[in-house]
Amino acid sequence: MLSRMTLREKAGQLNQRMYGWDAYRRTPDGAFELTEALRAETERFAGLGALYGLFRADAWSGADHTTGAGAAHSADLADLVQRHVVDSSRLGIPALFVEEVPHGHMALDGTVLPVNLAVGATWDPELYERAAAHAAAELRARGGHVALVSGLDIARDPRWGRTEECFAEDPYLAARLTEAVVRGMQGHMPDGLFADDKAPVVLKHFAGQGATVGGRNSAESELGLRELHEIHLPAAYAGVRAGAAAVMAAYNEVDGMPCSGNRALLHGLLRERWGFEGLVMADGLAVDALARITGDKASAGALALSAGVDLSLWDEGFTHLQEAVERGLVGEDVLDAAVSRVLSLKFRLGLFDRPYTADRSAPAPVAARGRALSTALARGAVTLLHDDGEVLPVRPTVSRVAVLGPHAGTTAHQLGDYTAPQRPGTGSSVLDGLRRLAPPGLAIRHARGCALTGDDLSGIPEAVAAASAADLAVLVLGGSSARTPDTDFAANGAARSPVSEMTCGEGVDLAGLRLGRAQHALLDAVTATGTPTVVVLVQGRPHAVPEAADRAAALLTAWYPGPWGGDAIAEVLLGHAEPGGRLPVSVPRSVGQLPVHYNHKDTGYRAYADESSEPLYSFGHGLTYTTFAYGPPRLAGHTVEVDISNTGQRQGRTVAQLYIRRLLTPVWPRTLELRAFRSVDLVPGECRTVAFPLGADQLEQVGADLETAVLPGTLEIRVAESSRAALTAVPVVLRTGEAAAAGQNFTAPAATPL
Amino acid sequence: MLSRMTLREKAGQLNQRMYGWDAYRRTPDGAFELTEALRAETERFAGLGALYGLFRADAWSGADHTTGAGAAHSADLADLVQRHVVDSSRLGIPALFVEEVPHGHMALDGTVLPVNLAVGATWDPELYERAAAHAAAELRARGGHVALVSGLDIARDPRWGRTEECFAEDPYLAARLTEAVVRGMQGHMPDGLFADDKAPVVLKHFAGQGATVGGRNSAESELGLRELHEIHLPAAYAGVRAGAAAVMAAYNEVDGMPCSGNRALLHGLLRERWGFEGLVMADGLAVDALARITGDKASAGALALSAGVDLSLWDEGFTHLQEAVERGLVGEDVLDAAVSRVLSLKFRLGLFDRPYTADRSAPAPVAARGRALSTALARGAVTLLHDDGEVLPVRPTVSRVAVLGPHAGTTAHQLGDYTAPQRPGTGSSVLDGLRRLAPPGLAIRHARGCALTGDDLSGIPEAVAAASAADLAVLVLGGSSARTPDTDFAANGAARSPVSEMTCGEGVDLAGLRLGRAQHALLDAVTATGTPTVVVLVQGRPHAVPEAADRAAALLTAWYPGPWGGDAIAEVLLGHAEPGGRLPVSVPRSVGQLPVHYNHKDTGYRAYADESSEPLYSFGHGLTYTTFAYGPPRLAGHTVEVDISNTGQRQGRTVAQLYIRRLLTPVWPRTLELRAFRSVDLVPGECRTVAFPLGADQLEQVGADLETAVLPGTLEIRVAESSRAALTAVPVVLRTGEAAAAGQNFTAPAATPL
Repeated sequence: MLSRMTLREKAGQLNQRMYGWDAYRRTPDGAFELTEALRAETERFAGLGALYGLFRADAWSGADHTTGAGAAHSADLADLVQRHVVDSSRLGIPALFVEEVPHGHMALDGTVLPVNLAVGATWDPELYERAAAHAAAELRARGGHVALVSGLDIARDPRWGRTEECFAEDPYLAARLTEAVVRGMQGHMPDGLFADDKAPVVLKHFAGQGATVGGRNSAESELGLRELHEIHLPAAYAGVRAGAAAVMAAYNEVDGMPCSGNRALLHGLLRERWGFEGLVMADGLAVDALARITGDKASAGALALSAGVDLSLWDEGFTHLQEAVERGLVGEDVLDAAVSRVLSLKFRLGLFDRPYTADRSAPAPVAARGRALSTALARGAVTLLHDDGEVLPVRPTVSRVAVLGPHAGTTAHQLGDYTAPQRPGTGSSVLDGLRRLAPPGLAIRHARGCALTGDDLSGIPEAVAAASAADLAVLVLGGSSARTPDTDFAANGAARSPVSEMTCGEGVDLAGLRLGRAQHALLDAVTATGTPTVVVLVQGRPHAVPEAADRAAALLTAWYPGPWGGDAIAEVLLGHAEPGGRLPVSVPRSVGQLPVHYNHKDTGYRAYADESSEPLYSFGHGLTYTTFAYGPPRLAGHTVEVDISNTGQRQGRTVAQLYIRRLLTPVWPRTLELRAFRSVDLVPGECRTVAFPLGADQLEQVGADLETAVLPGTLEIRVAESSRAALTAVPVVLRTGEAAAAGQNFTAPAATPL
Repeated sequence: MLSRMTLREKAGQLNQRMYGWDAYRRTPDGAFELTEALRAETERFAGLGALYGLFRADAWSGADHTTGAGAAHSADLADLVQRHVVDSSRLGIPALFVEEVPHGHMALDGTVLPVNLAVGATWDPELYERAAAHAAAELRARGGHVALVSGLDIARDPRWGRTEECFAEDPYLAARLTEAVVRGMQGHMPDGLFADDKAPVVLKHFAGQGATVGGRNSAESELGLRELHEIHLPAAYAGVRAGAAAVMAAYNEVDGMPCSGNRALLHGLLRERWGFEGLVMADGLAVDALARITGDKASAGALALSAGVDLSLWDEGFTHLQEAVERGLVGEDVLDAAVSRVLSLKFRLGLFDRPYTADRSAPAPVAARGRALSTALARGAVTLLHDDGEVLPVRPTVSRVAVLGPHAGTTAHQLGDYTAPQRPGTGSSVLDGLRRLAPPGLAIRHARGCALTGDDLSGIPEAVAAASAADLAVLVLGGSSARTPDTDFAANGAARSPVSEMTCGEGVDLAGLRLGRAQHALLDAVTATGTPTVVVLVQGRPHAVPEAADRAAALLTAWYPGPWGGDAIAEVLLGHAEPGGRLPVSVPRSVGQLPVHYNHKDTGYRAYADESSEPLYSFGHGLTYTTFAYGPPRLAGHTVEVDISNTGQRQGRTVAQLYIRRLLTPVWPRTLELRAFRSVDLVPGECRTVAFPLGADQLEQVGADLETAVLPGTLEIRVAESSRAALTAVPVVLRTGEAAAAGQNFTAPAATPL
């Protein structure tokens, strides 16, 4: 087909310039019609390569339940647009419809899942794979094709507003969840073709976006190549190995060149070393940004194409590719390779044969299943950080509960960024959940206390009164990525005050990790009543609230648990479910002690003069309502075994975490590295032997030459309930490779030149 | 000579294991005698390679005016030790006496200079070169040989306690001062031989120590190679180019390997690419630390020697070098090369011919000259950050001044880390300076107000009373690196309270950049009196005190200005001198907004949701008592010219700063890069044309291949009073190299593989 295309038609395939919501207009009678903007675009390129965000709905796009396409009408809209595209194309090439699916399809009526950080807290790739499969099925049923999914950013600085889009601070945990989303959304493709309920995934962002300085969105990274390979690339490699159809080049630069212009990254590493054959998409306007150093947008487009970008997003630069080829800025063979990758993806989706939704066979997924999966993920994400053992799960003796805080009675703060407007009544707040699940005799009183931000303390007395009159206070605090004004409802269901605060999400980076001043005052005042208080943090990043643990009987974080997060939290509080979450990131004591990853280099640094250098809570931490005992790990062939017992009074789940600690090694080691984990559910008194096979995924390391391999050396294996517990766990020393360790000639190894 | 040495003798030359203060004992009658420890050491190695810190005096060494060697006795002590070493050596090889000279010789009676950060604030390499020459002459007159000098660490995170040892956040400014200290201490050596009043310099630390994560001392760096080359290596390269005799390998690792074991750094870069022929010393115990990954100290020593370390410090590892060679862990040729570098340095010092101080011809330097140079540097470092124009210099109408704050009446906080105990009466506090220099009618009242740290607010009422009764308050706040308990004197000269707080210096990293709580309370209380207040910060790092500028009539920082800093500050306050300093580092608004360098990458990041991303005061900032106008820069051949006028009412000095801003460039540029500066002293109304030649130092950049060169591209030239002013300065666009910029084929450049 390539040979039959004109230069203009080829360039058109690489452009994704329009906002999808500009392609249609909803008429007063509810029908959809195409816009002049779409017609101009398809005429300009004699077709259309890809269309971004046809179903995107949020404050930015302006699409809402009045103007946008709900589940009932999306397929018709998709077919209307596609028919026009096919008709506009001399060769009848259909468009790719590319959609945001960061935690569910960001469209009206799309099932919202917990954000990635909450998914990370579940340590449950299998559950997440099923939820991802559901999201892909929803997307395809509505006529969308390609899913944009955050899966590669590693949470290294909680000041970054997109921390919520990261699975973890840890490359191994993140890699397992990235694989899960690829498997779940794309399915198995023995023939390379996507099933009708499966969607190609664009994994974003490649690479190193979690390492921008100061947690500043899209800012520079000062990342070393070792950090890149050890921390920021493993999830991407896992995603590529799992068959991801595409990756998105990140905004930040890596060693001097923004990813969209970085041929060493996109071509040398991704295609040549990793053998990636999929599509590379640029992030929005990232190609045009290269004009800062090339001088004009045509040369910026040529640079990006040369570097390895196949498909641009919103840029002008790629609209000049015909001119760029004609001026000799880039060869037509490079252009052809990119076009063939775009066409190949359309082929793998079956779009040439069956461009319309009506052609497809897969049934639409059942909404109740989406809700169940979202709630299950939320349940698995609720993490018990601190527990004095006196109040949770809520005792039968408790008869009056005060449910307090700006997050207690609304679902708006539970959703996270990249969420479409919700229909009224969707979801369940903590207050809703407790009301629904509490035993009949439990009296529940709600007071908001304060707003999420600001200094207004006028609501605190009401909250204090409610707490004082209660046996137990549940205080729900935190942050919010609610982009749209939403509504908080009073206990009687009346609308109360608009929610306009946004303290997290893309573009909302914070220099301080404390909560709003009023929230701290509310925490002080409620805990000062003497009523035992359970603090629940709903948040998109770990906020620094060390006093919550000091003053509260129990402290939980639910991250952004999604619409039905309130149900999940209530289940855990009431003991209907165990607290399933384990920390996917370390929780700092203060912003001044950043970074606080568990997997720092083993330098023996002790402390700041005025602060610990250790986090308040470490990666992997999460209490349960029972207790577990871990025996010493033992080596049996290529397997590590450990006996785990439930030593408490309740059934519960422990997440056994296998860490390695390198001893003799050619490069300076990290203190610990997570290399396997396994959930074990045990009844009281039960003991089970858990076996971890040791393979390359457990043992390999990035050598002095930056190649990943199993290298000679020795290491310890530790299995524990958290990274902190692993520091005191009994080690098994394992000798890898063949070189004798002691007495070896440690001439300096070959390394890349500095 | 090498051919006549045994393996044991060779190994001995590479060891510097003893603490110098353990080599001697002072007898009750004031004479010195050698210790068994020294005899054992010289016997073990049949001689002694180098001896560290023979004259070091501080709390750690325990050497003080009772037990250590003052100026009057040092030469005798040196000769006593040296005679024993020569006698112990079959071949009569003398030892190198290696001393700390970070800001003056760290010995009893050594002239203390302002710390490097204050030196950086002077922007005056010529003055610093003279001060460094004086320090070297003092060192040599006392019998010391080699000067350990901090000159390579770049201040990138003020949490780091050693920020005071850095010249600047900027590589260009730091490089000029590093050259100055090398030239000043080593002098010109057409024959390669050091004059008797000159000292070989060990520049520390190589490399990247300013980039350890979280400002944590000796912790890991996650430094990218581009950051290394653009920011952290230029000062080292300048020092090497200026002829530095030695460098010290840093503790931190660079891309996976601690510097002492990093052959890519010490051999590949330093020796092969840069052609460095001098000595490489390891930092204290850094060789032994390599045993963490090699398994034992012998192999750690072999690794360090193989990597390029010639001389170790305190380690056990290098004591096993004979065994290491015999076991084949490292070749004898590698050992020989290291030994020849040690012997070569001894030869260049003339030690084989004239091992004793009595052999030397240079006269001892005059102490008054040291004081004058130290004071001149301090004067040049006093930086006026904020000035409402109403109070400074102190008006003749002022008749009562209150001199307040924990730093006002003591010199202890002015000295910085790595300082020997001072004889009572040495130096001048701000109070001393004002008393000495104030006009006869000016009444001065002193109140300390509070301690440097802690919560004791009991002294604040006295300070408030003093401020209330005064026309002007001078409030001296800040931090301290005073290691030894020192004494604060009351206004009547009576001893008052011990100074035991240390908030800066090596090992004193801070997670918070605020001052002690009592200091903030004092600031609040004094400014609340309504009496116009001048705040002077004495500090070893930029503390975050944004409210000082809001509440005070004027704000100055003097960094650690040295013993006579109080005189310099008083001169500036009274208008006897102009405020000479310009910021060598950006001053943050809060710890949460770190990093805040002016020379960040040009990403257009706007702000945190809760904080600016811009510093409170930018690199290069510093007000004067007059005003200057800068005309637009113009290009004249290979020179940039700019007309500068004194538009105010007083004579004054402006530091004209030339920044480049890259436009078309093969790698992503920084916002600005300082590439030249020039001091201009002008009387009111005077206008002068300042010319900056444009050469490689101004234009070159680190290319995609990490090689530094002048590359094709375009850039703007801006000349302004500070980096922030340069953002609005009129640019001159300059085309460098030959490649046409627009229309160029921007195929991705060659780059090192990722």
